[in-house]
Amino acid sequence: MSTYTATVTVQLKEGVLDPEAETTREALERLGFELDALRAADRFEIDLEATDSEAARDRVEEMAERLLANPTIHDYEVAVEQ
Amino acid sequence: MSTYTATVTVQLKEGVLDPEAETTREALERLGFELDALRAADRFEIDLEATDSEAARDRVEEMAERLLANPTIHDYEVAVEQ
Repeated sequence: MSTYTATVTVQLKEGVLDPEAETTREALERLGFELDALRAADRFEIDLEATDSEAARDRVEEMAERLLANPTIHDYEVAVEQ
Repeated sequence: MSTYTATVTVQLKEGVLDPEAETTREALERLGFELDALRAADRFEIDLEATDSEAARDRVEEMAERLLANPTIHDYEVAVEQ
């Protein structure tokens, strides 16, 4: 068994409204910043023991499907490092 | 002027309690997943126009200092891509 760190990035699918990101963008503009767009995402870093990186990725993808993301409205990406 | 995309990752400093991450870890364990640790972070992707990537980075670091992060409790990282 080795220790792996998996990073899960959970983002709203394109077309799903994101009022929190919109509010953040407006607040930045009120402070005088110029920007074209702002997208928000949640990132989770998970340390886990697994036999290999493929097993670590499989387990973390299942975590994303079952709890970290809502597949109806979210896309997610998993990256695994030893 | 060129268009850049900056990614800002905002994470609690080490030692700052994160009850949301703790709750997520416990929920994963209740679902039967084994993991050693879970850290949560907020990620912002910002599209902006700037003369060069250094100017884009400077502006986004100021956004992080002034709004996206709370320097008392957060660390942040900025990555810029064209």
